[in-house]
Amino acid sequence: MLSAVYPGSFDPITNAHLDIIKRSACCFGKLYVAVFENHAKEPLFTVEERVYMISEECRGLANTVVTSSRGLLVDFAKKHKIRVLIKGLRAVSDFDYEFKMALMNKKLAPEIETMFMMTSLEYLYLSSSLVKEVAMHGGCVKGLVPSSVERQLLSKLHKPI
Amino acid sequence: MLSAVYPGSFDPITNAHLDIIKRSACCFGKLYVAVFENHAKEPLFTVEERVYMISEECRGLANTVVTSSRGLLVDFAKKHKIRVLIKGLRAVSDFDYEFKMALMNKKLAPEIETMFMMTSLEYLYLSSSLVKEVAMHGGCVKGLVPSSVERQLLSKLHKPI
Amino acid sequence: MLSAVYPGSFDPITNAHLDIIKRSACCFGKLYVAVFENHAKEPLFTVEERVYMISEECRGLANTVVTSSRGLLVDFAKKHKIRVLIKGLRAVSDFDYEFKMALMNKKLAPEIETMFMMTSLEYLYLSSSLVKEVAMHGGCVKGLVPSSVERQLLSKLHKPI
Amino acid sequence: MLSAVYPGSFDPITNAHLDIIKRSACCFGKLYVAVFENHAKEPLFTVEERVYMISEECRGLANTVVTSSRGLLVDFAKKHKIRVLIKGLRAVSDFDYEFKMALMNKKLAPEIETMFMMTSLEYLYLSSSLVKEVAMHGGCVKGLVPSSVERQLLSKLHKPI
Amino acid sequence: MLSAVYPGSFDPITNAHLDIIKRSACCFGKLYVAVFENHAKEPLFTVEERVYMISEECRGLANTVVTSSRGLLVDFAKKHKIRVLIKGLRAVSDFDYEFKMALMNKKLAPEIETMFMMTSLEYLYLSSSLVKEVAMHGGCVKGLVPSSVERQLLSKLHKPI
Amino acid sequence: MLSAVYPGSFDPITNAHLDIIKRSACCFGKLYVAVFENHAKEPLFTVEERVYMISEECRGLANTVVTSSRGLLVDFAKKHKIRVLIKGLRAVSDFDYEFKMALMNKKLAPEIETMFMMTSLEYLYLSSSLVKEVAMHGGCVKGLVPSSVERQLLSKLHKPI
Repeated sequence: MLSAVYPGSFDPITNAHLDIIKRSACCFGKLYVAVFENHAKEPLFTVEERVYMISEECRGLANTVVTSSRGLLVDFAKKHKIRVLIKGLRAVSDFDYEFKMALMNKKLAPEIETMFMMTSLEYLYLSSSLVKEVAMHGGCVKGLVPSSVERQLLSKLHKPI
Repeated sequence: MLSAVYPGSFDPITNAHLDIIKRSACCFGKLYVAVFENHAKEPLFTVEERVYMISEECRGLANTVVTSSRGLLVDFAKKHKIRVLIKGLRAVSDFDYEFKMALMNKKLAPEIETMFMMTSLEYLYLSSSLVKEVAMHGGCVKGLVPSSVERQLLSKLHKPI
Repeated sequence: MLSAVYPGSFDPITNAHLDIIKRSACCFGKLYVAVFENHAKEPLFTVEERVYMISEECRGLANTVVTSSRGLLVDFAKKHKIRVLIKGLRAVSDFDYEFKMALMNKKLAPEIETMFMMTSLEYLYLSSSLVKEVAMHGGCVKGLVPSSVERQLLSKLHKPI
Repeated sequence: MLSAVYPGSFDPITNAHLDIIKRSACCFGKLYVAVFENHAKEPLFTVEERVYMISEECRGLANTVVTSSRGLLVDFAKKHKIRVLIKGLRAVSDFDYEFKMALMNKKLAPEIETMFMMTSLEYLYLSSSLVKEVAMHGGCVKGLVPSSVERQLLSKLHKPI
Repeated sequence: MLSAVYPGSFDPITNAHLDIIKRSACCFGKLYVAVFENHAKEPLFTVEERVYMISEECRGLANTVVTSSRGLLVDFAKKHKIRVLIKGLRAVSDFDYEFKMALMNKKLAPEIETMFMMTSLEYLYLSSSLVKEVAMHGGCVKGLVPSSVERQLLSKLHKPI
Repeated sequence: MLSAVYPGSFDPITNAHLDIIKRSACCFGKLYVAVFENHAKEPLFTVEERVYMISEECRGLANTVVTSSRGLLVDFAKKHKIRVLIKGLRAVSDFDYEFKMALMNKKLAPEIETMFMMTSLEYLYLSSSLVKEVAMHGGCVKGLVPSSVERQLLSKLHKPI
């Protein structure tokens, strides 16, 4: 069975991400969940914290490997003999950006396929940055992120500096 | 009759905003125009300057209250017993973002409704940031913002530092 | 308080429609639900059947009037002294069409406002035509339409000709 | 390894379809290519002709089964123990429609996943109906459809009635 | 100077079309306005009536030729040594369709360029079919079509059959 | 014949830009390629380096002038008696932004026309920032930018600081 990778910045992981992870873990022989730095944004959590939080949530998924990487996604895929890149889609704006990335990745590595999965209906509006914005302003994020992530998010946002 | 809030960063208020304010003031018992900070962008005007400029333009609208707030929009709405959030739409890119915000706000406060109004045709291309960009490069913004705002915009942009 | 109209072909009414009706009935003094013929499509139910099905579902909503009409929506609105047209939005393709209609209606009747409401998350994918397609092929539409509509849909689709 | 189905009306199959078939055949244990009737459009080719044309092109793909079906796609999938529905995406308008279908299919069969693949760059503008329109007006469709399909298309369009 | 063609079904010509014609007539040496049949829709006016109505409105434009054609647009362009295809854009849905057509036309005739112009703001919501729908229901179309077209539209729609 | 301008930040020029330059140089009497600063992003190349790189690639195009400018595009156009602004379109997200700019430019200078051209199919996914991102992570950008630009990009990105 094929290996796949689900890449992201996961700062932090949300229930929308977790839903894609669980659903794609059922479809592939091995699923890598790979934390990539998003250089455009100052992260809230370190890469190590993000890998740890995802690992905690993926304990029950035997064929899933949580890791982090730098550089090009296609290079990560080649190194691990991965054939499929998994991307989650929520809305048109996602698609437009992902469409360009998928074409660029096809150019860089024609043998690797990008497969898009729809985020489940209940998480369609969810993104890490929206969750952070809500939490920062004291809004309740229960049900939007796993409960252990919720605790770490609150402690990170409200810790004395 | 119901109360509504029209939130925004209004940096500065444009004729497109003013058009939405006037039209929605006719549809609701009380209309709050609430200046919220947009943390992603360095503002040109202070919150106080923005509230003042909007207040000047809304003098003739008896049921309109101009104010500022911090935190979540839904918390502002709950505090003031507001049932309706007014959002102006110009184009597809607006909609995509507002769609996520409306769903998140519905999750945070199911009893509050978001209602979208189309910006009037003549202001469809107008945004505060485009107005600032044009003014900064010496372009004429007459007809795009109220004339008192035009004066303050020019004096702010060209004042000696 | 203002009157509003929620127009549609409602062939048949779905839970997505019903959700918009209930939420907008709370926001306006009087809500007209008006069945308009969609000349582009051959309807499954007669206008009378559609009005009847909606009426059954709206019994508990005291300020709601279910009716049918022909001609222009703005003429219906003027005749009934309605100030607000309610439209439900599900996705970008809806918006694009509704955007043109809202601008045309503004041209035809500048004093009337179109207000858009987001369909609730759980019904975001729902349309009368998709429901009919699913039912026609023997799929289960429980939870997509009110249960009395489900019965009438099945009896209409599978009745001997 | 999982089974997948790539459904469509394929009236007729184009090189864009064939590209998706070849790429997804590499990703799944068994790939069903299933011709479904599109009731909204009068087809040019019969279902049998379409199945035949696809079969000819898929001869070299050992794990691919070409067939036809009626009814709901999810019922076909359940019957054949298929876990993945493959959809090709070309543009935003595709996505908007496919997004609704994917959510409906998820509602009807939560255990089945829809996976979207981007059409290869060179076929991004291609659709069966555009190919038919070009051929009907005497335009050259070489490179847009397999050459045997080109012959059958021309003979079908220009045969004496 | 180059020749260009502005194709359409023009059933009937609207002020939005006329605006594109006038603006593009200033940019090219010769402008063909070419009425093409849209086989998907039953027309209201005959091709001859449509050519006549456009010709009346284009009298003052010395470098403009109004004509009709069948077949592929690129074949028309080649025959008349036309280098540029002019398309008007109103909204995202237009663009999505025109994008596919432009790519197909580039494939069929690489030496011919498609150039898109934005419809003027005031006509952004305007289409022939919307005009017909409004007129059919007794709405006022003054300002949406030239006044002679308005007369012919009303006489066509309300003539005794 | 008319003059046109193709503006951009060109940081650096890609094959997608070059394709638009070559195609539009054939359609207008004189084509200005004008490097404008994009104040929102820290550039990789200086304006002078960008002008130089474009000039090298445009040597064979006799009617093309490569230059740089500050301020409003319409002011540049007026100063050089330019009637047409050329914009390249790749996808819906481009269009949405360009649509607002075109309407604003029409407001600022009604006598100047914006004409949009589709990026050629093979470069549809290409942008300067994507090229820089790929190059920065060691990906191969051959075929995405002219080969002299590729050399300068690599030397700029990997030079010792």
